[in-house]
Amino acid sequence: MSVHSYTKAKYDRSDKMEMGLPDFPSGPLDIYRKKASFNWKEMVMFLEGEDMLAFKQHVFRMLENDPIFARQSGEDMSTERMREVTFRRCKQLFRYDFLTRDDIMANPWRTVVLNDCLGMYDWSLGAKYFLNKGVSLDGWMEGERLHLLLFDCPQTFGCFALTELSHGSNTRAMRTTAKYDPSTQEFVIHSPDFEAAKFWVGNLGKTATHAVVFAQLYTPDGACHGLHSFIVQVRDPKTLLAMPGVIVGDMGKKLGQNGLDNGFAVFHNVRIPRENMLNKTGDVTPEGHYVTPFKDPNKRFGASLGALSGGRVSISRMAVVNLKLAMTVAIRFSATRHQFGPKDDQEIPVIEYQLQQWRLIPYLAAVYALDYFSKSIFGNFVEFQIGMMMKDNSDRQAELGREIHAISCSSKPLGSWTAQRGIQECREACGGHGYLAMNRLGSIRDDNDPNCTYEGDNNVLLQQTSNYLLSQLHEHFVSWSASKCFINHYGTAFLTYFLVSLSTSVPLAAYKWLVCFLLRESERRVAKEKASGKADFEARNNSQVFYCRSLSIVYIEHTVVQRFHDQTHDEDTPAVLRPVLKQLCALYSLWTLSNHMATLYQGGYFSGWEPADWIQQAILTLCSQLKDEAIALVDAVAPPDFILNSPIGNADGEVRQDRRKHEMEFCCSSAGGSISNGTTGSSKNSVCLTCFC
Amino acid sequence: MSVHSYTKAKYDRSDKMEMGLPDFPSGPLDIYRKKASFNWKEMVMFLEGEDMLAFKQHVFRMLENDPIFARQSGEDMSTERMREVTFRRCKQLFRYDFLTRDDIMANPWRTVVLNDCLGMYDWSLGAKYFLNKGVSLDGWMEGERLHLLLFDCPQTFGCFALTELSHGSNTRAMRTTAKYDPSTQEFVIHSPDFEAAKFWVGNLGKTATHAVVFAQLYTPDGACHGLHSFIVQVRDPKTLLAMPGVIVGDMGKKLGQNGLDNGFAVFHNVRIPRENMLNKTGDVTPEGHYVTPFKDPNKRFGASLGALSGGRVSISRMAVVNLKLAMTVAIRFSATRHQFGPKDDQEIPVIEYQLQQWRLIPYLAAVYALDYFSKSIFGNFVEFQIGMMMKDNSDRQAELGREIHAISCSSKPLGSWTAQRGIQECREACGGHGYLAMNRLGSIRDDNDPNCTYEGDNNVLLQQTSNYLLSQLHEHFVSWSASKCFINHYGTAFLTYFLVSLSTSVPLAAYKWLVCFLLRESERRVAKEKASGKADFEARNNSQVFYCRSLSIVYIEHTVVQRFHDQTHDEDTPAVLRPVLKQLCALYSLWTLSNHMATLYQGGYFSGWEPADWIQQAILTLCSQLKDEAIALVDAVAPPDFILNSPIGNADGEVRQDRRKHEMEFCCSSAGGSISNGTTGSSKNSVCLTCFC
Repeated sequence: MSVHSYTKAKYDRSDKMEMGLPDFPSGPLDIYRKKASFNWKEMVMFLEGEDMLAFKQHVFRMLENDPIFARQSGEDMSTERMREVTFRRCKQLFRYDFLTRDDIMANPWRTVVLNDCLGMYDWSLGAKYFLNKGVSLDGWMEGERLHLLLFDCPQTFGCFALTELSHGSNTRAMRTTAKYDPSTQEFVIHSPDFEAAKFWVGNLGKTATHAVVFAQLYTPDGACHGLHSFIVQVRDPKTLLAMPGVIVGDMGKKLGQNGLDNGFAVFHNVRIPRENMLNKTGDVTPEGHYVTPFKDPNKRFGASLGALSGGRVSISRMAVVNLKLAMTVAIRFSATRHQFGPKDDQEIPVIEYQLQQWRLIPYLAAVYALDYFSKSIFGNFVEFQIGMMMKDNSDRQAELGREIHAISCSSKPLGSWTAQRGIQECREACGGHGYLAMNRLGSIRDDNDPNCTYEGDNNVLLQQTSNYLLSQLHEHFVSWSASKCFINHYGTAFLTYFLVSLSTSVPLAAYKWLVCFLLRESERRVAKEKASGKADFEARNNSQVFYCRSLSIVYIEHTVVQRFHDQTHDEDTPAVLRPVLKQLCALYSLWTLSNHMATLYQGGYFSGWEPADWIQQAILTLCSQLKDEAIALVDAVAPPDFILNSPIGNADGEVRQDRRKHEMEFCCSSAGGSISNGTTGSSKNSVCLTCFC
Repeated sequence: MSVHSYTKAKYDRSDKMEMGLPDFPSGPLDIYRKKASFNWKEMVMFLEGEDMLAFKQHVFRMLENDPIFARQSGEDMSTERMREVTFRRCKQLFRYDFLTRDDIMANPWRTVVLNDCLGMYDWSLGAKYFLNKGVSLDGWMEGERLHLLLFDCPQTFGCFALTELSHGSNTRAMRTTAKYDPSTQEFVIHSPDFEAAKFWVGNLGKTATHAVVFAQLYTPDGACHGLHSFIVQVRDPKTLLAMPGVIVGDMGKKLGQNGLDNGFAVFHNVRIPRENMLNKTGDVTPEGHYVTPFKDPNKRFGASLGALSGGRVSISRMAVVNLKLAMTVAIRFSATRHQFGPKDDQEIPVIEYQLQQWRLIPYLAAVYALDYFSKSIFGNFVEFQIGMMMKDNSDRQAELGREIHAISCSSKPLGSWTAQRGIQECREACGGHGYLAMNRLGSIRDDNDPNCTYEGDNNVLLQQTSNYLLSQLHEHFVSWSASKCFINHYGTAFLTYFLVSLSTSVPLAAYKWLVCFLLRESERRVAKEKASGKADFEARNNSQVFYCRSLSIVYIEHTVVQRFHDQTHDEDTPAVLRPVLKQLCALYSLWTLSNHMATLYQGGYFSGWEPADWIQQAILTLCSQLKDEAIALVDAVAPPDFILNSPIGNADGEVRQDRRKHEMEFCCSSAGGSISNGTTGSSKNSVCLTCFC
């Protein structure tokens, strides 16, 4: 399966209007909608494709029409209550059965689309649903036995238990053990002490009945074979009480995603049948011998690296979805909020200000760049997964695993940080209204925050990418992958000249030079550290800041820009959309490149006044050109109002009226508000502001 | 009163150990405490001075010993409940009477110290207390009449009502009116429509009885004299019901500071006595004539600008206090959290990693740079206020008002953004533990967030500073203020050579060049826009990004660095502390300067490889040198554990044990946690993990 099946338009333009996409109600945003150079519905069709758009609309409709998903903007709910409500909603999702095994096999992208939909509604719900689904699928991929145990079984609820209290990023230091006992053909799962308690396990706090536990595998000969995963029952499905030998608990309130019950677990010599080992990369025979399908440990390593990339690929996607939500709110608000003007009595929409454009529109460009990238990297990941299922033991498969690891270890940091900063900028760009809980920017930020941390701290992960690149430099071979082609430019790229034009080829050339330059500098830095007598561990650590870390960042930014650039030049990209997509690509690439200007000057790629000045003028020009496209661009990525759940981000743009309506209702709600109406001298908590008109 | 009275050490070193500062319990942090080059208690004495330290300890003790201030880490409280609890605590503070009028007159800094203490405990409480106190003081400064009405009167509760639903930053567009009626000698306060409703008013949501309302003043001759403030009673002190003609309500949940009840108010021709006008800068005679003590409107403008700076001066301080809290948590955690190591069985504290040092220690330097700056700018502000009280109408007083306006309009953005980014970095640097509500980094971030927005959006405020600088450039006079001396370097600064040394004089010279360079470029940019036919309004707007905005930022960074540099060279700074303070000053200045390297290269101040390389190496060197001072440096600014209220930030550094204790208790609390202990097969929600040992 190739990346293209996810990323190319698959529709006949003649029926693009037949999709039943609703028109937006007329309002203050009409002015900007009319200014757009393209039809937002056509952009939706291009981004989603007919099938997935229909699926998305179906999911959104189901949620909106089901009272169990009803909610109020900014409602004040206790952690306990949020977990109850989310669990009930999760159960309802399984009844809806949005995702059958056949669906997934027919088009794995459908899984991502469903996660997008659920996340846009509430990430806690998406996480709760997919953690359970994931266990089922993992089990199912191991063979029917675990599928029978778990898959779609309403009585059971799953979770993944990897992180321990004292170890997160350093997975090799996990201390939970799984010792095989041939006499009973069981594994004995044990936590040596509380430091080794499994921590942060989503779903484990209150509801999980079964956990996929990662533990150090020991065979009877005393040999440790490293981390493997095992299905362990932790609760009685009927009473939800812990199983004998298991202590489970809830970790309590987090900054966000409080509908998800993260928990901890401690195991006391808990015995599980041999069949409960997930034996994809290794297994234990009834007699207690360790066997693995991988003859070459190097290939096995590549395989497991690739497999572990799934989470990071998915997080890269989740981050861009968060940015879509925040941008929709901030851009629509900026187009309707009037402040200051050439004359005191003539205020203008704040999006007309260069400063507001510069604060927001580059992040809108990032939405389109990262949205496409998350699709293309998913395509690569599916290709790898299929290889795994086909037991492909080729060099190419192992190499693919390593490269997906390197890309996902940097795309997750790039995505989660871009979203983190973008959402914060949106919060501030909406002023006080962005600080009201009801407008959701706070919860979007808080729900995005763990993307910077789980599946590996961003800064730690970036070291994986630079390690990979440095090893590539040494091996110096020409790989199948386009994303490494510039390794061959190494040396020659230094001669590249800087040409002024609005084509992305200029920032692309600069990025190729940056990757080569930082690759060389990082290598020199590591060598220098070693020459000064430092051990490998210390030499690497002392080469991160300004070298290896920057290398990983420019590498992934280059990859994102290159793929987006290719899409905008793809003949399958509708001609009518190419101009705006090229502008977005140019803005994103110049905006990210501008963070590296000091390096470009330092290394001599830039010199004198012009390059920086040109980049800055180009950024401002593109921002002002895209200002009139901005509303249509968010329309194309925005969910329905019910899902967005942010009064100032409503599609009709009736901010004032809407804000008034919502805030007033809000004040009468249980969320801490109350109105006292002095005109009657009595307190009327149910007073409606319409009676004031 | 000079700035020095707040910022110079006022103690005899011989009795520095007599201050009764408690020693920290022995623990994992001992290693780093021993490594420090100075005694943290000496640093505390230098930073606080004997009197203020004693006052601080008194306040902290009172809070810790009073059950009404008792709380649990990360407790899950409804917005409604938070407001009740905070109101009760606020009432208690007034009983304690920490701040009498005589205290304030004797040493205005005491007000700031009390705000520091309350904010470190909970910003909602500090805001609620000082908003009420502020109204009292304002009233009192107007003369006894309002003091008698409000000051320390337990039945009344005050608030300030400036912002309106549709206008925040654009104060001139406020639409609430105050029309004087000579027949009854009353003002009529009126909201023309809901768009003009007063919004965001702290204390107004539930508890305020009196509001200082900013309204457009109209005299009977129909003339509008602009915004003035009036005391309006909004609620009956006994029933807390709204007064006739007033509608008040609560705005509901915010991202943070939910103990503070922000509200809105709409007025229907509410009549108030003439005496309720706050007549500092203008008054209305009984007959209805407008009078002002300022003959020169220009001076009146300067005066009101200066007066409005108070809030921003205070916010600049609040931001650095937030950074102190977050740094204490993250640095202590980083010194006790072990992860990875040269050998798998030999993990090292994460603060030993260059990457972790680079993420955190520059923000620790920012704490010391901004802490000193907030003191010195407060000194300038007090000087200005005294001039106001003395009815000083001199040019210098007006100029001082303008300059304090320019400084506070950029120090508030610098402080609030530095804190915002620093707290986020701390959150991420503590990994998952930073994401647990109980460790408080989330609420510190959320409580700091409004500092970027209220009293003027940061980006909008920065325009005030650049406008001022451009006007200075045109006037070209040599002012009293050291902060403008480099205007005289204009032109010559371009000849400055770049010298390699660790003295702050190098970054200072670079900053002087940057200010001059961006001043010239901003002026050119504005001129170019005008030459192309743009009106003044548009020309200014189109010169913000990369020009005026950057100018304001380098101007305030230069001011902060210059003042900190002067302090580290001040003979009154204890010799034993100077080395570490100089290192902090060098790190802060190079770290902030490194954000402008592209400009330094573009303008030709930097060229070639060395400058950037030297700055980067200097930053890394300083970070690793300060790593061993870091614990003592946070000890000197940290509040007691009870106030900090973050298990992973406790002074004894017993993170594991403590985290374990807290998290387990937490799990048994009402905050969403529960433990099910399978060893007995029964559910024990009160099970204590100690029984597991």
